[in-house]
This record gives sequence, C-alpha cells and structure tokens, in this order.
Amino acid sequence: MTDKLRLGLVGTGRIGRLHVATLKQRVPQAELISVTDVNMQSAQECAEQYGIKQVAASLDDILADDTIDAVVICSSTDTHAPFITQAAKAGKHIFCEKPIAANLAAIDAALAAVEEADVKLMIGFNRRFDSNAARIKSAIDAGEIGIPHLMHIISRDPAPPPIEYIKVSGGIFFDMMIHDFDMARFLLGDVEEVYAAGGVMVDPAIGEAGDIDTACVTLKFKNGAIGTIDNSRQAVYGYDQRIEVFGSKGAAKAENVYPNAVTISTDQTVQQDKPLHFFIERYVASYQTELAAFVDSVLQGTPSPVSGQDGHAPVVLAMAALRSLKENRPISLSEMAV
Amino acid sequence: MTDKLRLGLVGTGRIGRLHVATLKQRVPQAELISVTDVNMQSAQECAEQYGIKQVAASLDDILADDTIDAVVICSSTDTHAPFITQAAKAGKHIFCEKPIAANLAAIDAALAAVEEADVKLMIGFNRRFDSNAARIKSAIDAGEIGIPHLMHIISRDPAPPPIEYIKVSGGIFFDMMIHDFDMARFLLGDVEEVYAAGGVMVDPAIGEAGDIDTACVTLKFKNGAIGTIDNSRQAVYGYDQRIEVFGSKGAAKAENVYPNAVTISTDQTVQQDKPLHFFIERYVASYQTELAAFVDSVLQGTPSPVSGQDGHAPVVLAMAALRSLKENRPISLSEMAV
Amino acid sequence: MTDKLRLGLVGTGRIGRLHVATLKQRVPQAELISVTDVNMQSAQECAEQYGIKQVAASLDDILADDTIDAVVICSSTDTHAPFITQAAKAGKHIFCEKPIAANLAAIDAALAAVEEADVKLMIGFNRRFDSNAARIKSAIDAGEIGIPHLMHIISRDPAPPPIEYIKVSGGIFFDMMIHDFDMARFLLGDVEEVYAAGGVMVDPAIGEAGDIDTACVTLKFKNGAIGTIDNSRQAVYGYDQRIEVFGSKGAAKAENVYPNAVTISTDQTVQQDKPLHFFIERYVASYQTELAAFVDSVLQGTPSPVSGQDGHAPVVLAMAALRSLKENRPISLSEMAV
Amino acid sequence: MTDKLRLGLVGTGRIGRLHVATLKQRVPQAELISVTDVNMQSAQECAEQYGIKQVAASLDDILADDTIDAVVICSSTDTHAPFITQAAKAGKHIFCEKPIAANLAAIDAALAAVEEADVKLMIGFNRRFDSNAARIKSAIDAGEIGIPHLMHIISRDPAPPPIEYIKVSGGIFFDMMIHDFDMARFLLGDVEEVYAAGGVMVDPAIGEAGDIDTACVTLKFKNGAIGTIDNSRQAVYGYDQRIEVFGSKGAAKAENVYPNAVTISTDQTVQQDKPLHFFIERYVASYQTELAAFVDSVLQGTPSPVSGQDGHAPVVLAMAALRSLKENRPISLSEMAV
Repeated sequence: MTDKLRLGLVGTGRIGRLHVATLKQRVPQAELISVTDVNMQSAQECAEQYGIKQVAASLDDILADDTIDAVVICSSTDTHAPFITQAAKAGKHIFCEKPIAANLAAIDAALAAVEEADVKLMIGFNRRFDSNAARIKSAIDAGEIGIPHLMHIISRDPAPPPIEYIKVSGGIFFDMMIHDFDMARFLLGDVEEVYAAGGVMVDPAIGEAGDIDTACVTLKFKNGAIGTIDNSRQAVYGYDQRIEVFGSKGAAKAENVYPNAVTISTDQTVQQDKPLHFFIERYVASYQTELAAFVDSVLQGTPSPVSGQDGHAPVVLAMAALRSLKENRPISLSEMAV
Repeated sequence: MTDKLRLGLVGTGRIGRLHVATLKQRVPQAELISVTDVNMQSAQECAEQYGIKQVAASLDDILADDTIDAVVICSSTDTHAPFITQAAKAGKHIFCEKPIAANLAAIDAALAAVEEADVKLMIGFNRRFDSNAARIKSAIDAGEIGIPHLMHIISRDPAPPPIEYIKVSGGIFFDMMIHDFDMARFLLGDVEEVYAAGGVMVDPAIGEAGDIDTACVTLKFKNGAIGTIDNSRQAVYGYDQRIEVFGSKGAAKAENVYPNAVTISTDQTVQQDKPLHFFIERYVASYQTELAAFVDSVLQGTPSPVSGQDGHAPVVLAMAALRSLKENRPISLSEMAV
Repeated sequence: MTDKLRLGLVGTGRIGRLHVATLKQRVPQAELISVTDVNMQSAQECAEQYGIKQVAASLDDILADDTIDAVVICSSTDTHAPFITQAAKAGKHIFCEKPIAANLAAIDAALAAVEEADVKLMIGFNRRFDSNAARIKSAIDAGEIGIPHLMHIISRDPAPPPIEYIKVSGGIFFDMMIHDFDMARFLLGDVEEVYAAGGVMVDPAIGEAGDIDTACVTLKFKNGAIGTIDNSRQAVYGYDQRIEVFGSKGAAKAENVYPNAVTISTDQTVQQDKPLHFFIERYVASYQTELAAFVDSVLQGTPSPVSGQDGHAPVVLAMAALRSLKENRPISLSEMAV
Repeated sequence: MTDKLRLGLVGTGRIGRLHVATLKQRVPQAELISVTDVNMQSAQECAEQYGIKQVAASLDDILADDTIDAVVICSSTDTHAPFITQAAKAGKHIFCEKPIAANLAAIDAALAAVEEADVKLMIGFNRRFDSNAARIKSAIDAGEIGIPHLMHIISRDPAPPPIEYIKVSGGIFFDMMIHDFDMARFLLGDVEEVYAAGGVMVDPAIGEAGDIDTACVTLKFKNGAIGTIDNSRQAVYGYDQRIEVFGSKGAAKAENVYPNAVTISTDQTVQQDKPLHFFIERYVASYQTELAAFVDSVLQGTPSPVSGQDGHAPVVLAMAALRSLKENRPISLSEMAV
C-alpha cells in the first residue's frame, strides 16, 4: 500500500459531491482517482468541477482497477448492500453512506460478504465526528461524568422534506432518527428496549403519506441507563441538535452551534441569530474528520471507526420504534430477532 | 372583609416557618394572627421568632376564631385532607401544602367539603410562581411559540433524602415528580396517557426501600402534545430544574439559576459556580408570589390560582406512572378511573 | 450592648424606606427604634407602613436617646457630613449613604469627628455586597486569576434622570461613576492616575445643564494595573452592570442579571428578556447584605466593612476625572492633594 | 480577463502557505499559477504540497508573466512597500499582508504607485471578514443599535512570541494592536485622538527588549464616539477576541469562539473548554472570505474591500499610541501629520 489511499467513488449526488470536495481538499492522505454515477453527466460534471482524472463507466470499472484501494458508496440507498457485496468481493475497502439497507436480510448479506473478504467497512454516521458529540463521548470515556444514568437527544430539522421524499424515505425513524439511534449507541452502548410516542403535528400531508412528523422515543440501554430521543420535522428557528448525558459524577450537555457569537441588545430584547440552518452548515467539519478517519484506519490497519454492526443496529432500533408506535407498548429488542 | 386577610397557620415545621416568614415580611396584605402545631414548643418558638401574637392550642381554636378568614395548612401530609374538611366546614378559605393526600378517596372527600362550603382552596404548587415557569407559561399563552408539540422537564435533586424518609415518602412519583406532573399540566393541560421507565442507579438502599431513584416518564397530553419528565435523586452539581416547550412557532427553554453571573477563565477551563443548591435557595421568590396570589384571590374574590382539581390530577398521574413502571406498558388515564 | 443593635434612621425618602424595609424584614439582629425626616409627614407614613414604634422630631432626639446604638443617615447629601459629625459626637455608630460630601474639607471634618469619637462609620457602597462583585473579589483574593493586570467596569443606566436632578447632581462623575470608582478600589486598590474622555451623546439638554452623559475613564492603579470605567446615562436595553478583571492566571467576568433564565427561539431570532431594569431590582439583595454587615461589625466589634476613607477616595477620583476631562490630560492623584 | 483570476504569490512562510491552501482549496474562482520565496526550497516544498504548477525564481518572473492578473504579497514586512510598487508598475492587482510598512513615507510611496497604475490594492486585515466582526458591522450599518457611542475591543494573545521576535516586531502597537486599530476604524470610522496606557506585566524580558506587554488605549472618533482597545500578550485561557459597540438604540457584543458547545457540570463547577487557541484556529474562515473578496473585487471591478488608505491609517494610530505612551498625554492625529 502506498503512502496515500487511492479511492474511487460511486454516486455524485449531493452527499457524493460533498465527499468528493472533502477528499480532494481536506484529506491530504487521500487520492480520489475515479468517480461514477448512474447519471454519467453528473459524474462528468463532478469530475470537472473537482479535478478528478477519471470518470468510470460503472462501479465495475472502478472495482476492476487494481490501483484503487477503496471505494466510497454514495449512490441511492437500495444499491448500498449489493455495492458493498461487490466491492468486498473485489477486495476493496469500503466507506458506505448510511443506511446499509432498509431490511436486515440485505444488511446481513452485505456484512457477511465484508467479513468473508476481510476488507474494512465504515458506515457514514458523520455526527460521531462532530466536535460536540466527540467531546461528550470523551467526557464519558474519561470518567468526567461517572456512570451514565440518563441521556437526552434533541434532533429537529428546520423544515420537512417534500412529501414525495417522505413517501419513499422509510419514515421518520429510518430517515431521521436513524442518526440519533446511532448517536445513542455511540454514547451509551447497546439498547434493549424501545418505546415510541409520536404524532402528526407539523403537516397533515405527512400523516396522509403514512408517516409521523414528531416523535419521542424512550430507550432502555443494556447498562441500565435510560434515554430519550426527540425528533421534529420542523423547528422554525432552525436545525436543533442537542445532546445531554447525565451520570453519577456530573453531566455533559451540548448546545446548538451558531453562525456567530454576537448578541444584540435592544429596547425589546437581548437576542442572537438563529442556529446554523441545516446539516450541511452544521456538520461540515464532521465530514472531513469522518473521511480522514476512514482513510487513516485503512492506511494504518486499525479497526473501522464505524463498523458494519454499527450500521446494522440502528436499523433494528428503527424497526422496533415503528413497531412500538403501532402496538403502543415497549418493544424488547429480543422480539426483533431474526 | 377587612383590607388585610387575617390568617391562621397549622404546622410550624420547615415549610411552615418559611410560609410564616413570607407572610409576615413579604405579603403586606396578609395578617398572620395565630399559629399552632402538634408540637406546641415548635409553635411557641415560631411565634416568638416571627412576632406572631397568638399561639393556638389546636387547629380547632383557630377555626373557632371568627376574626380569622383563612388557614394555611403545613402539617404532615396525612392531616391535609381532614384539616381541609374541617376548615371548609368552619367557612375558612384554605391554602394547603401539596399533596392533598396519597389516596383519591381522601382527596375527593376533602374537595367535596370545599365545594359544599363554597370556600376557596389553593394547593401549594409553588413552582408555578417561579419566574422561569411563569415566563414559559406566558410565552405559550401569548402564542410566542405557537401550538405546543413537545415538552421536556428535567428535575433533579442535589442529593437523596434519608432512607427513612424514602420509606414513608410514597416513592419518587408521589414525593418528587408530583411537582413536575403539576408543571406539565400547568403548561400543557391535561394528560391522557403515561409511560414510566426508571431504575435504581444512585443508591441500592433506595431500591431496598422499595423505591427507584431515577425515572423518565413520557406523557401524552389531551391536546396531542408529547412530553417527558426526567427525575434523579442525585445531581452532584446541584439542583437541576429545567423546562423546555417546543411548538409550531418556536421554543421556550428555561435554564438553571445560579448564585452569581460570574465566569472564571483559567489555563484549564472556563467555569462558573454550580446552580443554586436546592429548593429553598432556588424557589424562595416563588413562595412569596404564591402566598400573595392566594391572599389576593381571597381578598378580590377571584378563582383559586391552583385549584383542588389541580391537587387531584397529579396524584392520579403519579399512580399511573407507578402502575406503568410495574406493568411496563403505557397506562391510559381512563384505566385509573374510580 | 444587647443582642440586637438598636437603630435610628434619618431620611425616609426612597433609599431611606428601602433601608427601613430591609432592617425590619431582613436583618433579624437589627431593631429599628425610631425614624425622622425634615418632612414629618413622610416620617409618619414610613413609621406606619413598617411598624416603627417611634417618630422622632429630629436627628437630635434620636441622638439623645441613650437606648439607641447607631444611626442610619439617608437624608440629602448636603446633610451627610454635619449629621456624621453630630452622631459621632453623640457616640453613635454610623451608617451613611454615599457620598459623604461633594467637597473634601467637609469629608475630612466628618471623618475627624468619627476618629475623635472612636465610633464606627460605614459608607453605603452597596454594590460591594452584590453577589457578582463579591465573587470577583473572592476570585482575586483567593488567587484564582493571579495578579490583576486589567480591569473593565461597564455601568450604564436605563434612562437619564430629570434635567432638574442633573443640575444638582454634581455631574456624572460624582453622581453615577462614584459607585464605579468605589468598585475599582474595592477590587484593585488605590489609584494613582486618572484620564477621562466623555461627551454629550444621549441628550443635548444634559450638555446644556453643564454635564456630560457618556464617559470613559482610564485608571492607573498603584499596583501597576490599568482599568477603564464606561458610563452612559441611557442603555435602552436596561441597566448594564458588568465587571471584568484580567490577571496573570486568568480572568473573572460578571455578566448582567436577568429576571428569568428563559430563552425564546422563533423563526426570527433566539432571545431572552432584557436585564433587570434598574438598581432597585438589580441590587435589592446587596442592600440586605450591606446592612447586615454593618450591624454585625458593630455587634462584633470588627472593622467597618466600608470605611470613611472608602468614602473619601472616590470623591477624589471624581474630582480628578472632572479635571482630566476639562484639561484633556491624565491627572495624577498627587495633583489633587490638599 | 478570464472567468478565473490568475494569481502569483510571493512569500511561502506561515501566512503565505495559509493563503496558498485557501486559494487552492476554498476559492474556486482563483487559479494560483506560481509561487516564489527568497528561500527557494520553501517555495519548492510549498508548490509540491499544494500542487502549484510553477515555482518562479523571483517576484520579477511572476510580474513578467502576462497570464497572471494579480499577486499576493506575503513576504517579510520590509519588502511589502517595494513589492507593491513593483507589482503596480507591472499592472498587476495586489493583495498585500499587513502592515504595508512601518514608516509613512514608504507607505505613501507605495500607495502613489498603486494610484498611478490604477490597479487594485487590498490589505490583509482578515478580521474584518470574521463572522463576529461582520455581524457587528452589519448591526451598525442596519441601524440595529442606533448611533454608536462607545466601543470596546479586547484582544489578548495566548502567549507572547519569542523575545527575538519582540525585538524586531515594532512593538505591541504595530505588531498586535494594529489589527484592533483597523477593527476600530472598520466599525466606527476615523479617529482623531489617541491616549495610551500600558506596562510590562507579563514578562520583564519584554520590557528589557524595549516593548510593553499590556496596553489599554482610548480612542476618540471623529463622529464623537469613544472607544478602548485592551491588549495583553498573555491570556492563559487562550485567545481572547471580543468586541462590543454600544449605541443609542442598543448594543452589539461579540463573545469568544469555542472548539465545541459542550458544558460539563461536576460537583465542583460548571465548565466548558477554553476558547479556540490562537489566530489560525480562530480566524481560519476569515482568510477564505478575505481572499474570495479580493478575487471577486478584481473580477467584478468593484472597489477594494480594504483599501490602501485602510493600510495607512492604523499605522498612524500605532505611531500616535506610541507617542502618547511616551509623553503620557492624549495625542491628536493632527499632530501626526507629515
């Protein structure tokens, strides 16, 4: 293996281009060789915009390139599992956007292929690499707050996506809370029971599309701690992303992040600007840290920072939450077994 | 009725003396005439300390005094309901510390006596009169945050009470969360379903005494909103009392209150002193506003600021929470009907 | 001397009544026996309102009362120095509102009488007893921030007083910044040079009355530290009272104090209510601590918490500031010597 | 002129490389063609690291390249003025790091050459492009705080530079406060009088090198406002960069910026991590905005965002401050005229 990690990328949509820009401009130990997309024009444009040498006709071509060490999968969710399997069989290390798949059988098949090929797989739960989440994690790991007892995650979007998107999103637990399930596991470990409450409060059309727009889920962790996750599709004041962990020796609390640290006092009020608007603004630095962590883990042969199992578990939690909401009772994860 | 309200008070323990001091020093429209206690020495000391003219031999004597308009009941919880009944029959207006009683039959009997006598009854949920709670309530009432969707109350004590107290306290839902149930109702109205999670995380002795020390309860409100209440018997950093309501047009969030507004920056950290230690320090101003509100409501003939029904409802919620914890399922309040 | 300190008070205007209320309701070791005022009706009303037994015809009558240990002087500024002298000659301990006088000869005469009579004199610089100022002082004294290098005081009123008051106030340095000069000395010790900049920015009528309404003064302290004081007669967002001390090992910063700890987030902004409006709201607790400190110092024979010299020095600083403004140059305190 | 601005850069030291990285990675409308340095090895390394096609033997070679539109001058301060003159004569637009020169004659000569050649010159006062400074500026410009009356800038480094650097730095007013003089002018406009106080408080060796390490300067602005700038070479808690402007309708206050928004509460304190450590961390985003503003101003033919006069004025202020310190009196800028 050379000094730099040579990569190919499939899927040059919004998140794909963000990763292309990050790999080209912010991860010096990465060398992005080739990109592809089902929409070849998108791949071409992307390659030109960011100075990528090669536009591959398909993922197959990237996988056939012996000089490429690893692939970044940013294509549509339904392709994640088969692409992971293909890439693993080709002996490439894999960074894949979340979620791996919406059903466990597909996930399990992909993870089996990864294990069989003995390649590295990292799932793109970027928020773990945010400075707030990382600081809370380090506080827990360093014992600054003792043994965790309670946890609260607040995660609210500035506005709902289009109804057409809602219809194919898998619903709030799979599309939105999946990040928070991962954060909960990242901070406090595995969950054993889930209770979900929720409703349609923001837009009746979301209800008509078969989803809810507001949810509050209680998690019982294996270590005995209890947590809640609060999601809303619409916080009019902007992206609301807070975390709090309370333990035997203290508490760690992450507040929102703002575009500036200026307060304006007038004869009416003392005010500041609203929080950073949405995930692109709020989590931009986390994408860089995330991809650098992937590249380093491959180059240095260390474990994947976010493993295949970390991609599997939140999907189970989303399934349990959905079942809890429907049956109006707490669901033990033992009920969700294959 | 004279310009000032003439009062008698029964129960000169900790909370009783706090009310005596408040009535004497901070509520100019009140005239505290007489105090009594099962421990006559305590009543004597209290009268001397605060310059109360009369020490009554019993509540009966206070009730027999025609010049007294109202009574303040601060005696032990088991006496609240019978004393309310007695006072109502004597035609006195009543301020009674929470809770009215631990069982609904006793509460109902007392409330019936109050209704029959057509006197005013106010229950001592002082936190409603705290400047933070009042500001959030006014934000909701004024439409500043639109229709409430989600609510979170965090309420953690600095340290658990003695185990002997725990044993007779009725448990965390009746002794501690009762305030938060009231706050939830104050802010968002009536509840229709309760789900409780909890455990023994602070001290195994609390578990051996039959109680839990950490709890997280989900409430579904009649108006469709969802809320959580988080209680711990021990926050090592001090009294943690926060409230947050999220709505269609914004959110209102009350942070903790501190002994000063000073930040110290050193080569290690940027820090401030811990929050005000416990309820005496934290809620001192609320007791004054509360008693003034009672006195004014009697003098001006306006409705009781915290009605008998407001004393009844949180007890039902505590019962539902306890049942939910035991049966590990959400409990509809319709199941709790007589 | 008995267990309680027996006091008389002269001057039942705004600040006098505040002290009466405080002594009656918040300082249990004090017994306020008698009040008087040039306006006898005011004295009568005050006595009735707060239950003071005796209304004296004049300060002479109070001083003639052998059962009275100490006097509280809240009358108009021009009477402070002669009343201190009279009280000292009568052997009474003295609490006197600031300033002692507008000219140094009068101050010196009063202080000489106090020394001669060997009574205790405390000057009413209440802000020293505010929890923010006290916390910063304790940070300095405990070495939390090392040796002080820089200090900034911001002190802005919500609105200017009436022009008629401005005309007799002695000007911004004597009427307003006097408190900040005292705070500077309380925190960092004696000053040796003063440079004043200022102007009429709020209201031309203040300039026509011979005063300025905005000032920024630089102080060089004897210990080598440098500080600034910023005054404005009108901060439209309310009373702005901040202090910051920067030292070799860190910094201590006191922010404003607010009526509640609630933040409201809307689609426009994240906001909180304005700071507490003015000194009555902001410094209410400091008056209690201040008077208790006076009473305790007399009862326990400890040094005056705010000495006569502490009353003298800020007047010299105000004089130096005024001279600096007129001559547009830094003024050494050595130039201000008698 | 093409779509992209083609640039050469001279000086590949610390700030030079920061600009190279920014131009290559963050300013898509810029095309950095060529770099050079007196140390050719440094230029070579830089070119390799950032993929710059060409390493020029000298600035002359860059200026001789007709395909290059503009130069970025990051060489040592003594070369700034002659390089500006050379570049102007070659018809190149110029971005030059601050300060232009330490003496006014050199500055004036360079500015004359720029005017003669009618090229664009922008001075690298990057803090104007910081989100905090920009927000305060926009608050002033939009009238949110009315007419400015008072201004305070606090600007403290985490630790002093090496004494060898201090000796050639020109002193605290030229090396450190120059940024704050620019900020003061950016926010409130031209100054007409300067008063400086200062001392050696951090390290006696700085005094022995002929400099001070702590300073507090008062500025009287032409518009009547008054401001202060507070500098220390050592704030042990890290880079302290705050700004406050107070006006007739309110105030705008910029607080420090932190590496995360996490608060840790323990049984000792409520704390957060120290502010971002130094200018590289704190102002990283401002360098990108700054260079993009330069490139855009050239491409679009708009006025230079930070003009040659903006480079001249702070040097005059630094000179006036130094003279004020030595003569211990306020210095009118009229005294500083040629």
